[in-house]
Amino acid sequence: MEFIGEPAASHGVVERRFDIKGADGVVPGIVWTPEAASGPRPLVLVGHGGTGNKRMPYVLSLARRLVRHAGYAVAAIDGPGHGDRVYVSTGDDRAAGDGISNAFMTSVAASANAMTADWTATLQELRALDDVGDGPLGYWGLSMGTMFGSPFVAATPAVRCAVLGLMGTFDDSNPWTTAAAAITCPVLFLVQTDDELVPPAKALALFRSIGSEDKRLHAHPGAHSAVPPEEIQASEDFFARHLT
Amino acid sequence: MEFIGEPAASHGVVERRFDIKGADGVVPGIVWTPEAASGPRPLVLVGHGGTGNKRMPYVLSLARRLVRHAGYAVAAIDGPGHGDRVYVSTGDDRAAGDGISNAFMTSVAASANAMTADWTATLQELRALDDVGDGPLGYWGLSMGTMFGSPFVAATPAVRCAVLGLMGTFDDSNPWTTAAAAITCPVLFLVQTDDELVPPAKALALFRSIGSEDKRLHAHPGAHSAVPPEEIQASEDFFARHLT
Repeated sequence: MEFIGEPAASHGVVERRFDIKGADGVVPGIVWTPEAASGPRPLVLVGHGGTGNKRMPYVLSLARRLVRHAGYAVAAIDGPGHGDRVYVSTGDDRAAGDGISNAFMTSVAASANAMTADWTATLQELRALDDVGDGPLGYWGLSMGTMFGSPFVAATPAVRCAVLGLMGTFDDSNPWTTAAAAITCPVLFLVQTDDELVPPAKALALFRSIGSEDKRLHAHPGAHSAVPPEEIQASEDFFARHLT
Repeated sequence: MEFIGEPAASHGVVERRFDIKGADGVVPGIVWTPEAASGPRPLVLVGHGGTGNKRMPYVLSLARRLVRHAGYAVAAIDGPGHGDRVYVSTGDDRAAGDGISNAFMTSVAASANAMTADWTATLQELRALDDVGDGPLGYWGLSMGTMFGSPFVAATPAVRCAVLGLMGTFDDSNPWTTAAAAITCPVLFLVQTDDELVPPAKALALFRSIGSEDKRLHAHPGAHSAVPPEEIQASEDFFARHLT
């Protein structure tokens, strides 16, 4: 792990930008920890959404919140073709009225294994940090964060619980659907009933395919990106139950 | 309101059995209040499920919990054809494999207006009690408690929030569906994804038809009657946010 630039501290949260060597080149990431922290603590990995990046507003907000409220470490990495990795447009990621584009789904599916390897390498290096260590592990990722997160969580028994959602089963061969059956940790799954990209029936199908006995789905009215603050609080409470 | 027998106190909760004159004869009910309470407090009305009654185990448990944890008053009445009212079998309330029976839905639909009148009369008399008064009002009722509850909540602007669920839109003319559009208070709506009586897609349709902007759906795996304790806690938290 190579740190890029100096750590930045703000209101009790230290942010460190890092690069690691991933499956397919450099993986740029950020780790947030409490100021002056030492010793192992719960770690939450956050997967950003499509067209976003490791420091998009809701990722930053969730990370700072979990560090400040709960003393966790939080990390995010750019997905393939996103953020500080060369951006690869998949054309019409969001074709209005047509829902999620097939080109985007094909692109994510093709890099799902590489992203799992990137997360696995990131996790290993994060755990070598004195103020992260090998504490309880959680995952939070919606939309593309679930497309990539479902295979990662399924492949990583150390994940104790996961917040997933804003994604559905579009085809039984989607890697996020085939992996879902192998997930066994507690899951909180978020749905927007007016989601213009993911029809609620497809989201329900993905939720039902998750192997975990301990799972719950929370749905709200509104568009794909309109997840309400209530579910950020619910995420925090969910992590507290399983990681603390 | 005529009290039947003596009040019974147990672990801080006073239970009083009452009869009132309803739309269609005597309506038997129970009110639970904190021991030695006086003055107005939040009141939660609980509608029981089909084939149940005003003191079935989950009603009693929820009532005692809300009284003990939050100091509320809680009341339940028998539905038409249930409990201490003459039981009217609708035949195959639960025809295995066939879901909820049409005979049951027809029967409930026919008495929906009378049940709203019964709840309204009950509410008026409860509010005259010194230890209930005119505090904030909530409603909790699943399954038949939603079939009857949706019209009552829609007709009662004093209801500040409602927990509904385990019911769906089977026909757009169902009274619980036509009333749902007129509900405007915050709603928590509970769904079981393996519900043998209410297909999740029909439950989602009913949720979507609720007029409230502030509404959320929580779904869990399992059968109609397997709502997990997590949602009893969620109900309590939901009432606390809106009634306290």
